[in-house]
Order: sequence, then C-alpha cells, then structure tokens
Amino acid sequence: MSSNDSLARLAAVIESRKPAQGGDPDKSYVARLLHKGPDAFLKKIGEEATEVVMAAKDVDHGADKAKLVYEVADLWFHSMIALAHYGLTPADVVAELERREGTSGIEEKALRKAEHRATLEGGPS
Amino acid sequence: MSSNDSLARLAAVIESRKPAQGGDPDKSYVARLLHKGPDAFLKKIGEEATEVVMAAKDVDHGADKAKLVYEVADLWFHSMIALAHYGLTPADVVAELERREGTSGIEEKALRKAEHRATLEGGPS
Amino acid sequence: MSSNDSLARLAAVIESRKPAQGGDPDKSYVARLLHKGPDAFLKKIGEEATEVVMAAKDVDHGADKAKLVYEVADLWFHSMIALAHYGLTPADVVAELERREGTSGIEEKALRKAEHRATLEGGPS
Amino acid sequence: MSSNDSLARLAAVIESRKPAQGGDPDKSYVARLLHKGPDAFLKKIGEEATEVVMAAKDVDHGADKAKLVYEVADLWFHSMIALAHYGLTPADVVAELERREGTSGIEEKALRKAEHRATLEGGPS
Repeated sequence: MSSNDSLARLAAVIESRKPAQGGDPDKSYVARLLHKGPDAFLKKIGEEATEVVMAAKDVDHGADKAKLVYEVADLWFHSMIALAHYGLTPADVVAELERREGTSGIEEKALRKAEHRATLEGGPS
Repeated sequence: MSSNDSLARLAAVIESRKPAQGGDPDKSYVARLLHKGPDAFLKKIGEEATEVVMAAKDVDHGADKAKLVYEVADLWFHSMIALAHYGLTPADVVAELERREGTSGIEEKALRKAEHRATLEGGPS
Repeated sequence: MSSNDSLARLAAVIESRKPAQGGDPDKSYVARLLHKGPDAFLKKIGEEATEVVMAAKDVDHGADKAKLVYEVADLWFHSMIALAHYGLTPADVVAELERREGTSGIEEKALRKAEHRATLEGGPS
Repeated sequence: MSSNDSLARLAAVIESRKPAQGGDPDKSYVARLLHKGPDAFLKKIGEEATEVVMAAKDVDHGADKAKLVYEVADLWFHSMIALAHYGLTPADVVAELERREGTSGIEEKALRKAEHRATLEGGPS
C-alpha cells in the first residue's frame, strides 16, 4: 500500500472523529482533541516537535532510531489533526511540497527565504 | 502521482544533498543544513512547529488557509531533512502510522499513552 | 545589584528600542524584531525554547552547563521582547510567580492543572 | 520584595522538591517532574513556549493580557525546574543577561549573532 493510501486513509479516520461526524470524546483521543479545539492540538504540535528534537539528540548519543521514527510519526499525526480541523488534508501538504520541487524548486525557494531573512535580520545595521 | 511517490522523490532529492553525496553547502539550502549538523535542522523543526501554530491561530481569525498548508509543508520538509541525516525515510514514518492504525490501532495507542501520562502526572497526590 | 534591578533595567533597554521610542531597526536587533512585529519575536521564542532543550540534552552528555545558561538567557530575553510589545514587564511575570507561591501555592496550582488535564485526556474513555 | 528575592525564593522551593532533598513525587508536581527526569520537564518547556505563542496571538485578537503573563510565568517556572536539575539558578541566567548588557552589550551580541547567521544561511552561495 502506498504512502498516499496510508495518509489518505489515516486522514479519513481522523475526519470520522470530528464531533460533527459523531466522534465521541469519551472513546477517542482524536475526537477528544478535536472537541477541545485548536489550542489543545496546537499545543501538542509544539510538544511533539520538542519530542522529535529530544529523540534526535538521543540518537546522536546512541539511542535506537525507532524512537525518532515514533516521534516524527506523532508530530505528523497531530499535524494531520490540525489539518482536519481546518478542512485540509495531507494531500494539500504533499501538493505544496510538489509545487516547490522541480529543477530549481525547493532549493531555490528555501534559498530565497534564507537570503531574504538574512537581509532582514543581519541587514546593513 | 501518489503522495508516496512525491514524498519518496523529495526524500531522494534531500538524500542527494548530503555532503557525502556531493551536496554543496554554497548552492543548496538542504546541503547547508545537513553540513551544519543536527542542531541546525533540529532548531528549524522547533521554529517551523511554532510557525504552524501561529498560522493556525491566524486562520482562526480569518487568514488564508494556504498559509497553514505552507507552514505544515515546511515542518514536514525539515522533519524529512532530519530523517535523512539519521538514515531514515518518510516511508518509515508512514509505516509507523500504518502500524498504529487498524481496528483499534491509533486510538488505542493514543489513549493508552494519554492514560499512562494521566496516571503519572496527576497521580494519587 | 539584584535580579530585580537587572531585569527591570533590561526591560527599560528593550522599551527604548520600540519604534515609537525611536528604536532604529537598522542599528538594533531588538528594534528590528519589534519593528517586524509579533510573528518575528514569537517565532524566536519557539526557536529559543528548542535551543534550551538541545543544550540541556548536550549537558546530559557532558557538555558545558554555560551553554544551557546562555540559551535560557536567550529564551527569557526574547520573552521580555514579547512582554514589552504587549505593554507588560518581567515584574508582571514575577508577580504572577509570587501569586502562585505560598504554603500551597505553586504546587497546588500545578497539581490542579495536571489533574484537570489528566481527567480531560485520559478520562473514562 | 524584589524580583531577586522572589526568583531566589522560588528556586529554593524547587530545590527542596528534588528527590535527593526528600521531594515527594506523589505530593508535589515539581518533585514529580524532577523524579521523571529531563525529558519530562524539557518537553514542558517546548509545550509552554507554544502556549506563550498562542496566548500572544490571542492578545493580538483582543484576549486578556493576563493570559500571556500567566503563560510566560509557566515558561519561566519550567525553565527554573530545568536549571535546578542541572545545578543552576535564575541568578546564573540574570548574570548572563547582565553580562551581555552595557553600552554595546546585548545589542552588539545579538547583532553579531544575526549577522553571523545571515552569512551562514543566506551567504554569497
């Protein structure tokens, strides 16, 4: 099964947990986060990003890489809950990544951004 | 084209930017981050997670959802740079998400984790 | 000199960098952040928090503790820029910390919060 | 009472919650975090930083500033738990902030850092 199918199917599961779709906050973790609203799942994104960083640091010092995979999965999972709340899907994110790509795509975009930031932050002073 | 193909192709581009693969820090943003090492791209994960949160808050107040898609793409993109550095791929993350899924999968796992945390944090006191 | 004087004096320096006070974005890093607006310094708070976490992980593995002090100083410094933008001061934060303290203060408040969260997150399911 | 006294007193309370000082994880939130170890309180720093960002965004849209003060207090409080774990104090952080200050201090340091980063990130390529 492709990642496409997997992410789309996971997005569908999350979608079905929305209160409006009958998701039950007492039975489902996702339904509970969606029921509590943006601050609840946005806070988790900050928390899970921190856990990714800690897991990576642990791998630097010999820990099992599976922990890092686990934490990135958590981060992407909670990102998908946020996407669902706002009527968006992982396919939208993948389309944005595709849009950037290409011969010069991602690199140019990222470089332009870094250079722009450099100009703003470290400017003429 | 499926998300699978897209993520795999993007992962291949990132892989080719590794210093060991001839990635040039002077020409490529990804090569530059990989060259600088973990702290550089891990810091970006924390920063991009914060930008996702800010974009979501802005959407709550009427901003264009495209900004949120853009920031989640940035977050996933930098996650993929970290994965590449550690010899991992988005397919590993998708496999972990698949592994959790199933009849009881994601929900049960997430619930177990929340309950475990609840016990630890709010314990008997 | 007390921390109070130090934090108050630093807050006064930041205050003087506000565009309305004549702070010059071309000469001052603080004036530049304040000029760019909330997203600029809020993003830094997310980034600096991540740097605190990385520095702590490095100390766990033998790095110099001075790095951690440096990163916490950066985090508090950027928090103070945000406070200034919103017309608040470190004294307000210290007053809040004092308010929580007392015989049962901080502990009780934090425990109540953890227990409340436990109930919400890990509830009856 | 000065901030100095307040922060020092709060640091002393946190110190007394260390397992080695008899802090009881069943009775005290701080003792529980310290008992669980670095990942527990470092994760909180990432989470609280995110809450500061969300509260600031809410203030931008009309929310009470007290929420922002509350969240910055939480961020500093958890920073202090981390400092305590590593044998450091808020006085160390304030001393670092003082060290940077002075005629050219903070600004110069921050500018140098921004310019250095600009060179590295967006450089001539």
